[in-house]
Formats: sequence, structure tokens, C-alpha cells
Amino acid sequence: MHVRAFIEEMERLAPPYLAEDFDAGKIGLIVEGKTTIETVCCALDATPSVVKRAVAGNADMLLVHHTPLWTPLTSLTGPTAALMRDVLASGMNIYVMHTNFDHAECGVNDALAELLSLENTESMTLGLTGDCSLSVKEIANRLDCPVRVWGKIKKIQRLAVVGGSGFDPLFIAEAKERGADAFLSAELKHSVYRAAPLPCIEATHYALEAPAMKRLAAQRDWRFIDDAPVLHSVP
Amino acid sequence: MHVRAFIEEMERLAPPYLAEDFDAGKIGLIVEGKTTIETVCCALDATPSVVKRAVAGNADMLLVHHTPLWTPLTSLTGPTAALMRDVLASGMNIYVMHTNFDHAECGVNDALAELLSLENTESMTLGLTGDCSLSVKEIANRLDCPVRVWGKIKKIQRLAVVGGSGFDPLFIAEAKERGADAFLSAELKHSVYRAAPLPCIEATHYALEAPAMKRLAAQRDWRFIDDAPVLHSVP
Amino acid sequence: MHVRAFIEEMERLAPPYLAEDFDAGKIGLIVEGKTTIETVCCALDATPSVVKRAVAGNADMLLVHHTPLWTPLTSLTGPTAALMRDVLASGMNIYVMHTNFDHAECGVNDALAELLSLENTESMTLGLTGDCSLSVKEIANRLDCPVRVWGKIKKIQRLAVVGGSGFDPLFIAEAKERGADAFLSAELKHSVYRAAPLPCIEATHYALEAPAMKRLAAQRDWRFIDDAPVLHSVP
Amino acid sequence: MHVRAFIEEMERLAPPYLAEDFDAGKIGLIVEGKTTIETVCCALDATPSVVKRAVAGNADMLLVHHTPLWTPLTSLTGPTAALMRDVLASGMNIYVMHTNFDHAECGVNDALAELLSLENTESMTLGLTGDCSLSVKEIANRLDCPVRVWGKIKKIQRLAVVGGSGFDPLFIAEAKERGADAFLSAELKHSVYRAAPLPCIEATHYALEAPAMKRLAAQRDWRFIDDAPVLHSVP
Amino acid sequence: MHVRAFIEEMERLAPPYLAEDFDAGKIGLIVEGKTTIETVCCALDATPSVVKRAVAGNADMLLVHHTPLWTPLTSLTGPTAALMRDVLASGMNIYVMHTNFDHAECGVNDALAELLSLENTESMTLGLTGDCSLSVKEIANRLDCPVRVWGKIKKIQRLAVVGGSGFDPLFIAEAKERGADAFLSAELKHSVYRAAPLPCIEATHYALEAPAMKRLAAQRDWRFIDDAPVLHSVP
Amino acid sequence: MHVRAFIEEMERLAPPYLAEDFDAGKIGLIVEGKTTIETVCCALDATPSVVKRAVAGNADMLLVHHTPLWTPLTSLTGPTAALMRDVLASGMNIYVMHTNFDHAECGVNDALAELLSLENTESMTLGLTGDCSLSVKEIANRLDCPVRVWGKIKKIQRLAVVGGSGFDPLFIAEAKERGADAFLSAELKHSVYRAAPLPCIEATHYALEAPAMKRLAAQRDWRFIDDAPVLHSVP
Repeated sequence: MHVRAFIEEMERLAPPYLAEDFDAGKIGLIVEGKTTIETVCCALDATPSVVKRAVAGNADMLLVHHTPLWTPLTSLTGPTAALMRDVLASGMNIYVMHTNFDHAECGVNDALAELLSLENTESMTLGLTGDCSLSVKEIANRLDCPVRVWGKIKKIQRLAVVGGSGFDPLFIAEAKERGADAFLSAELKHSVYRAAPLPCIEATHYALEAPAMKRLAAQRDWRFIDDAPVLHSVP
Repeated sequence: MHVRAFIEEMERLAPPYLAEDFDAGKIGLIVEGKTTIETVCCALDATPSVVKRAVAGNADMLLVHHTPLWTPLTSLTGPTAALMRDVLASGMNIYVMHTNFDHAECGVNDALAELLSLENTESMTLGLTGDCSLSVKEIANRLDCPVRVWGKIKKIQRLAVVGGSGFDPLFIAEAKERGADAFLSAELKHSVYRAAPLPCIEATHYALEAPAMKRLAAQRDWRFIDDAPVLHSVP
Repeated sequence: MHVRAFIEEMERLAPPYLAEDFDAGKIGLIVEGKTTIETVCCALDATPSVVKRAVAGNADMLLVHHTPLWTPLTSLTGPTAALMRDVLASGMNIYVMHTNFDHAECGVNDALAELLSLENTESMTLGLTGDCSLSVKEIANRLDCPVRVWGKIKKIQRLAVVGGSGFDPLFIAEAKERGADAFLSAELKHSVYRAAPLPCIEATHYALEAPAMKRLAAQRDWRFIDDAPVLHSVP
Repeated sequence: MHVRAFIEEMERLAPPYLAEDFDAGKIGLIVEGKTTIETVCCALDATPSVVKRAVAGNADMLLVHHTPLWTPLTSLTGPTAALMRDVLASGMNIYVMHTNFDHAECGVNDALAELLSLENTESMTLGLTGDCSLSVKEIANRLDCPVRVWGKIKKIQRLAVVGGSGFDPLFIAEAKERGADAFLSAELKHSVYRAAPLPCIEATHYALEAPAMKRLAAQRDWRFIDDAPVLHSVP
Repeated sequence: MHVRAFIEEMERLAPPYLAEDFDAGKIGLIVEGKTTIETVCCALDATPSVVKRAVAGNADMLLVHHTPLWTPLTSLTGPTAALMRDVLASGMNIYVMHTNFDHAECGVNDALAELLSLENTESMTLGLTGDCSLSVKEIANRLDCPVRVWGKIKKIQRLAVVGGSGFDPLFIAEAKERGADAFLSAELKHSVYRAAPLPCIEATHYALEAPAMKRLAAQRDWRFIDDAPVLHSVP
Repeated sequence: MHVRAFIEEMERLAPPYLAEDFDAGKIGLIVEGKTTIETVCCALDATPSVVKRAVAGNADMLLVHHTPLWTPLTSLTGPTAALMRDVLASGMNIYVMHTNFDHAECGVNDALAELLSLENTESMTLGLTGDCSLSVKEIANRLDCPVRVWGKIKKIQRLAVVGGSGFDPLFIAEAKERGADAFLSAELKHSVYRAAPLPCIEATHYALEAPAMKRLAAQRDWRFIDDAPVLHSVP
């Protein structure tokens, strides 16, 4: 498959116009390599470990959610130089789907809803709400990460979920209005918690976004390369 | 004591020039009430619960770390109107020490060092490093909150601590350079973890900053009003 | 009447979309108090005197043209704290209609036209022109304030009026083009006078804008609270 | 006298570094004409009438307080073209001293103090305060213009004066602190009056600034060209 | 002919809405003089020499491509004062057509195409491409200026031309896409050359833009005043 | 030699603090490769041809004047990806000295002065002036590029030179004041020529800046890689 055909396919899946403005220039074909794509690998981040495993697996394309070139650069030094050396020397392409995939129909939040068996889902500005039959413990199990519960939860009937760093006061207010009992996302700030009208379940950024990449890989018969944070709770 | 005398005393403790630029207009006497100060209460945040308890205790002054008027406002509505009604109607003053207290000699980070029994401490741009003889579990006990450990920690010999939301890549790099084995703060972002050269111990914002207010209250014989987040880890 | 119903009624009278951009966040319900509105007072400004008289009259709502919270604030001190204490402690609401009322059909300039018996009026970008049968002295009488006449006026046949601080060179040029003989507004600057193609009649800001609030109060059977500047001309 | 020598003399009188930033490029030799200066005229503004009279008087230099080219221009049309035609065709220079003359020792405010016989004067950030033995009526006589008195004045003992448009809340607060009973300036805004801690005497911009130009002309034996606004109060 | 009629005619020829944003306020009637236009002169720039010759020829109107008042000014000194003195004293008008004439149908680029006998022309974002039967030497002859050739040209079949300073990477890329073999314009930068996908023929700004003014003069029976740069190549 | 030692040496030669603000982040070690530097190549630009020749010559370090990463980038595609692939895959470093080398004592302009045998040189804000005994033809020979002469030159006695794109009106005015007869630089704009008080000799950017790199290579026994623009004048 020519790289142009691959790009067209990905743009159908996660149209670039769905991306937030801050993603301008930071999605799509971020590193250009070979023009023929046979082997595709998929991961959440292009970490050094992910890149080495993809290159070792002769990947022609590495599809990720987070670009490795976020901050505009005028030099290639340190870890970025090392990473780009591995990528460019191998001829592997890197393609990024970020907030366009967050907003896409079969994207990040849809994968979360499936993983958590949410029913009767309803879209929000970002993320969605759905009927939830899981306990917090079961949610943590499905996500495969410890979670922190802020506030008191008796029983969750309607759960709001936003993949990534989604604890925005506006989103929480919207979830409340739509009847949610709890809000699941990552990276909760103290000041947001203080004003939150709903109890918050804080998982990790990785645990909420990796499922969408993993599911996509499974659907297309690509290899998913897992690289979860090393994390444990004490006590 | 006249309110002016109280202000002078606090300015000696946490001089306003130590504050970050973003705190301009957001520290000092934030709500002006009675001019005679007899009863002082002290808390981390001016939450509705804290304010009600302070007013019920006939406080003339409520000293807090976080201003209740962070976002510049041109109207007084909703929860802010309710809070200000309680405060203004009672004549209670609110005084804020924020980043000036973070940077002060006997401030937020110094209180943390004492709580964690750090020795041979050395100041950083923000926060400090010190010899640590506690395990992560003991740290969590002292802070009275569950913590999340990111990365692998064998034994901590030199610990870096930054009260509040201090996981800044520049601070972590500085801590690494100064020989720290681990970095303790709150509100760690995924992208920061990915590039961090040190394992990170993530406590809560409250657990890291409340000790300084509590210690100050104890020293001056003021009442400390506790209002910790309701939080537990699963599993 | 519920406060929401009151707001809807005012928004019909002076729709928020008519306001200038600089009024964003500075019109509408500026101080939120009781939810049931029985007694309404009306004034041009929420001065300390106006607020005290409204509170003494058990007003649930004070409707004004100029917001008391113009400059965005991150503290409540001095006269603003004193004013807000009176307002919040009483539970009185404050509602503001500013440039939306200037531009409204039955608003500030329409009330001026009626007060000055202007006929065959025609709208301008701001304010209006109309046939005038009054002398300058009669105008001053109707406005109940001394006026200053800049330039030479023989007889006014067609008068342009802009309530408030309306001596803008573009508005004066528009008035000239539309056939006006004189321009009535407040707060004339030297440089504007120097280039003005029309003689200017300078009243006070208060005298030009209060009539609209007074008329509105009369129409709705509300109490109008007058608080005109203390002013006299010498010689 | 060569024009360079004239400029040096004026720069000693009102050094350019005393000017406000907004005067950058708007003071000094604003229109360049003949290099030999014999006849100098002096006025507050370079109005068409002033320019015609200066040209008719064979002036080589017209010294004014307000530049005729305030707004940066990329065309010469309408009244500005007509004015510049008169100036350039005659070879007359125009030299401007603005806020540098306001702040100069023998400048605008010093001339006002002399005109009003103020004693024991003290400089403020802008303008000055002085002991005053005149009534408001006598002040109006000396200034040769009707004044408006805002607020109640019994007897003025210490008067603050700021030439031009000087009713700035910060200046009024400073005057109050320095013991002034009243504040004399021009172009008072409604919102400033509402918060003013002192009664305000509002003269005209011209009446406050022309005396300095007139005095300067008298000192140097230049011709002063008067062009006061045509103004009267009703009633 | 009244000057208004002249302006209307020019606005039909080169409609102001075709101009780039940076030309705002810098096209149209830039210096206003007599209202009756009998004699019109035409040139590329209003240089001192051009103005003197136009005035000597009793021109009522000087039509140019480049405004003499590009940088917004708050003073008239030095060469600009001298130039404006000549213009204003004579009562001659100056009218400017700049980027609106570049984009006009019968404008700058169209005149170039005619001069170089380009056929089957096609418009670009700016400028055009056309079949070219001239050698580089013949192009230099027609333009009446030495040219510099950057890169290797064998035979030009399809030439892209942009009058003025048109070596923009985006325009060169567009020309390449449209099948051009070479790109003719003025003022080539080193960095643009380094990345250019086409050989570049660098003429002078004057040689590329004067033909349009000359042709316009010929069509209307106006006098064209030539003032080409004094230029020669070595060796 | 360790790369750090190489950097220190270059920073002594062309101290970073001499660079213009716009060079922030664009000078110094721009691409990081091997840490041991044995073979150094030197060129004006890191063009694809220069990079290929340097890599073929086993260079560990390529020293250039112009960074290949001028525009901040968030992707590596097209020609930049191809260039960086060659550089990173080989492990070659790229080090940039730009405006710091322009301003350095033994830098760009000093090399030009030597090449043109200028005597009694005097520094300007940028560039220098010196006594010149060459004709324009000899200057063109020494620079090894055709030049364009704008204006009339009889005999050059005192020549101003500014390497690179130095035809700035302020620099030309400074040169005139310092007694120069002619100004040598590159990339002259029409509008600058129109107002220039001196005749201008326009060489190429490359011809003026390459000599400094060539001289530096000769001094250090590095290889200079020439890649002059392909350029000829017609006629």
C-alpha cells in the first residue's frame, strides 16, 4: 500500500478537521519515511522503547496518538535526536491521530465505552455519558490501572467518561446536567476538584487512551505495542 | 491587634516580593472586613465549609493559601456570591499567602521537610532536596494520603519535594542534577512522566500544602480548620 | 416574580446581543441575591447612596445602567467591599443594562428624544437626529442641568443627540451628513471640538442617561432613585 | 538664528526625555521649513486660523503645544492637506512641546500656579498643589473661561491643579493625600467624578494650557496667537 | 474632469477591493490638490525628479504605483517635507494604484505578458504563466535592464512572471506545478534561491512594473515620466 | 576532541551573546551526533550537496553559517526529512554560527575586508568601512561573482561593506556619515535604492559570506565545501 493510500484511510477514520486548533501541524504524517507501507505498528506514544520494538519488527509505519514533536523545534539534540535517528535511519513513517481521534465516532471515547460496557451512550462536547453496571473496582480492573476516587460514590448509574486529561470544569458541569453520577478521566487538579459538582474517578491518561489504539490494531490486524507507565498505589 | 499590624506581621513572614508574577493582585488582604483582629483562623482553602466554621467561631481573620477570587470577576453570582455573602456579612477578613509562602524560609516546603524528617536540606529554584530515611509507605502515612508511585523506587536516599503542583520538567531536571533519587509533588501529567529522569511520588496538593498552614496555626495559637479532599485509592 | 422571569423580561427590552463587545460579562445579573422579586428600584448608578436607599426600601432588585463592577477584580476591599457588603447582606440583586439599552428601541436615546420633544427622528449608528423646536436654554431646562455651548448656534432646527459620552468624531460627521445643526452629548474633548464640523452642546452624562431609567421606572411602576451629580456653573 | 540653535534652546527648556511614551515621534520639529529663524509665533494649537495668522506675520517658526499630526498618516487630504499646504508653501517650521512641557520646571503647571497666585507649591506626579486665596469665581476670571464645579466647595485653602486633561483617579487620590481641598483640571468623566474623593473644578483644556504658551511668548518677545474655543454656559 | 470622476474611473480600472490588506490607507487619493483634472502624468514612483517634471508640466494629477507616504508619519521633515512642499504648493494631486493594479485584469502582469509576447497565459495567485518564445537575452532587451539568471536554463517554453518583488516560495511552487520552466521576478533572496524548484530570472522591480504604467499612459494619452534606476552589471 | 571542547572553542571565536535576538535557539549545536570530533568540514549552507559531500568525507562535524532548521518545525517531511536522515544516520554533528559570527572580531566582515584589501577599517553597527584601492571590476573578481552597480560611481575611496543581506537604510545612512563613497552588500530592494544616499554595489549573499567560512577552514586545516549559486548576468 502506498503511504498516500494509508493516509487517506486514516483521514476517513479520524478526519483532520475534527482536531482542535492547537493540533495544527501536529497531526498526520509527522515523520516521512518509505513510500510503501506493508507492516504497521500502533501505540499510544512514540517512546524510545516503542520505536525500537517497531523498528526491530520492520515496521514501515508507526501509528500513535501523541506526536513525538510537540514543541516546535529548531534543533535536533538529546533524546529527540536519538529518537529521530532511530526512526529516520530505518525509513519508518510516523503518523499521528490526536484530538481528531478523540472526537471521531469510533475513536478514543467510543473504545472506552465499549471497554466499560456502557449502554445508552450519549455524546458530550468531549467524551460521553452512558449507563454503567460496574463498580469502581471493576472499572479499575477493566482499565488495568489503580484509580483514585475523589468525593463519595454510592452506586454509579450513569457514568461520564472523557479519555485523556478531561477534568475540565465545563465538561463536568455538562455531565452533571446530563444526569451523570460520576466523572471518569485523568489528571485532576485540586482547584477543579474543589468546585466539582460530581465525584471524580481519576485513572491514568494511558489507561484511558491506549484501549482505542489497541482496538484499532486488533481491527486491522496490526501489531499493538504496549508501553504502560510503571505505577502502583501506596498504601 | 489592628488589621494593619496583622498584615505587617504576615508580610515579614512571607514577603510579597517573593510571589510569582501571576499572583499579582491575588495575595494579601483579599477581602476587607473589621479593622480589629482578635480571633484568627487558618486553612488551606476558603471553601464554603471552612468559611462557615470560621464565621461560626467568630473569626475576624481567615488566613488561607489559595485565594477564593482567582479568576478576575465582573459579577458576583452563584457559589462565589454565596461565599462572599457569608464573609462580608460577618465582617471577617480574608488574607492570602500563596507563592510568597511557597518561597518563604519558614514556608510550605520547609514544613514538608520537617514533616518528613528530611536532613541536610538544600534549596532548589522551588522546593528542596534532603536526606530521607522513610519508605514510601511511611511518607504516605506522614502525609496522611494515599500516594501513587510512577517508575521504580528501590530505596530513597535523597528526596526532592515541591509543595503543590510542582512536577515541572525543569524542577525534576534540577533535582536529578542535585543528586535526588525521587521527586515528591502533586498533579503529575502523562507527558511529564514520559520524559522524567527520576521516579515520581504523586501525593495530593492538599496533603503537601496543608502542613505549612497547620504548623503556622500551631505556632501562633490560631485555630487550624481542616478540610481535606475526600479521597481513596482503588484497588 | 422569579428572578429568571425578570431577566427574560429585561432581555426582551434590551437584548444582550445589542451590547458592545467591551460590555461582555458586565451586563445582566451582576450581583445575585434572592430568587423572588417583588420590589424593584431603578437608578443610573449603583452609588453607595442609591444602594442604601434601595435596601432601606426593601428592594429585591436594583436595576442600573452602569455596573458597579466595571474593572475586573481579584479582591474586595475599600469602597467596593463596603458597597458589596450592603448589597449581599440584604440579598438584593443588581441587574445592569448598558450599551444594549443605549441601542435598544425604547432605550436611552429614545427617552432623550421624547424629553426634548424631537420630531421626525432618524436613527444614527448611535443616537439619533430630530427636528427641534427648543432653544438651548429650554434644552438645559428639560435636562435639568447647566450646559456648555461650544461654537456658535443661531437656531437649532435639526438636533443630533447621543446619550452618555457620545462626542465621537465619526458620530459628529454622521450627524453633519444627515443635516443636523448641532450635536448634544457629554464629555467633549478639546481635540474633538477643534475638528468638529458642528456646534456642540455639552450636558452631563447623568442628565442625558437618567431620563431613560426614570421613564422605565414610571412605565413599570418601580421606584426611581435619583442621585444627580452636585454641579453648578461659574459664572 | 539657525533652526538647530532654536531646537537646542527649546530642548533645554522642555527636555524631550521628560515626555510620555505616547509622545514618541510627536514632539520636536514636526514640520521642517526654512533653516533661518527670525520671527517666532507661539500658540496652543496649530489651527487653520493660527497658521494663517502666523504665515501672514511672516513667521519662520510656529511653536505649539499640540501637534497638528497626532494620528500617524499615510495620506494628505482634507483639512490636513489644506493646513500643510499653508505651512509648507510658506516655509514656516512647526515645533511641538507637549508632555515634556507639561513636566518641565517652567512649564504648563508652573504657569498655572503663577496665574492663580498659588503659594508654597509642591509638585505632584503631574501638576502641583498650592495655597490658594482665590474664590472659584476669581479662578474662573483669571482663567478667562466659565468653570463647572462638581461637588461642594466651601473655601479652597489648598488647590491641586493639573493642566490639560488631568482628572485621573490616581492624581486625584494623590492630591487628597497631599492635603488638597479641590482639584482643578479639564475634561472630567462621569465615572471619575463618581469615585472622586475631592470636589472637582472643571475648566477648559485651552484655558489651562494656553497661559504657559502666552507667558513663554512674553518672556521671549514672540507673538502669541490666541485662538480660544468659542464657549458659553447656559444658564 | 472633476477629481471625483477621475477617481471613479481609476477604481473601475483597479478596484480597491483587489488590494492586499497591507495597502489599507495607502492607495487611492494620497495627496489631495485641485478639484479639476486636465493634465495627468503617470510614473512608477513619485521621486523628486518625477514630481518636479510633473509640476513643470502643469500636471493636475500624478498617477503612480508606489505611494510616497508608505511609512505612517507624524512629522514632515527632510526629503518627505521637500517632496510634499513641491506637490502641495502646486496643487497637484497624487493617486496611487498598488496591489490592486497588480491583481487587475489589465494591470501590471498583463502588461508584462504583452511586452514579452507570452501566449496562452494562465493566471496564478499572483502573476501568470505563458508560452514564451524569447531567449533570456531577448527578455532582457524587452525589459531594457540587465538580468541575473539563477540556476540553469536550457530553453524556456513556459515562463512564469510576477511583477515587482515576487520571488515567494509559494508562488514558485505554484508555477512549478503549473508547468513553468523558469520564474521571472525581482529581488531574489539567497534562502529562496536555495530551495527554489525552478531556475529564476531576476530583473529589476522597475523594469517589471514600469511597463504597465507606460502602457496605461499611452492608452489614455497621458504623459509617462520615466525614471529608471541607474544600473549596470559588472562584469 | 570531545564535542564539548569543540563547542567551547567556537564560542570563544563567535560568542553566542553577540547574536541577534531572532537567532535564539538557531545557533550552536543544531544537530547532535557523535561525541568525538576528528574530521570537521565547513560550508556556508547545509545544502543536500554539502551534507552528502561532508558525510562521504567522514566528517564528524559540519560547521555552517546558516542553520538548516530555520523555521520551527513539528514534523520532519520532504527535503528536510531527507537532509536530516543523511545527517542523523551518519552521526555527523551540525554547528551553526550566524549573526554572532557576523559581529565577531574575526568574523564575516573582517574576512571581507581582508579579501578586498581594505585599510584603516572602522567598525559600524554592522559591517565596516575601509580605504579601498580596487575598482568595481576588481571587487567583482575578488568576490568571484558578477555585481550590479546602482547609481553612479566614479572612484571608490572609502567603501562600506556588510556581509549578507545588509542594505538597511539605517546602515547606509551610517556609512554615509562615516564618509563612505559606496556601499557593498547583497539583496537590494527597490525602495531602499530609491532613498539611498550612496551608490550601492550589489553582490550575492554567498559571495560576501562564504569567504569567512573559507578562511576559517584554512586557518584550522578543515575542509571547506564550496557550493556557490549557479549564476550569470545577461547581457
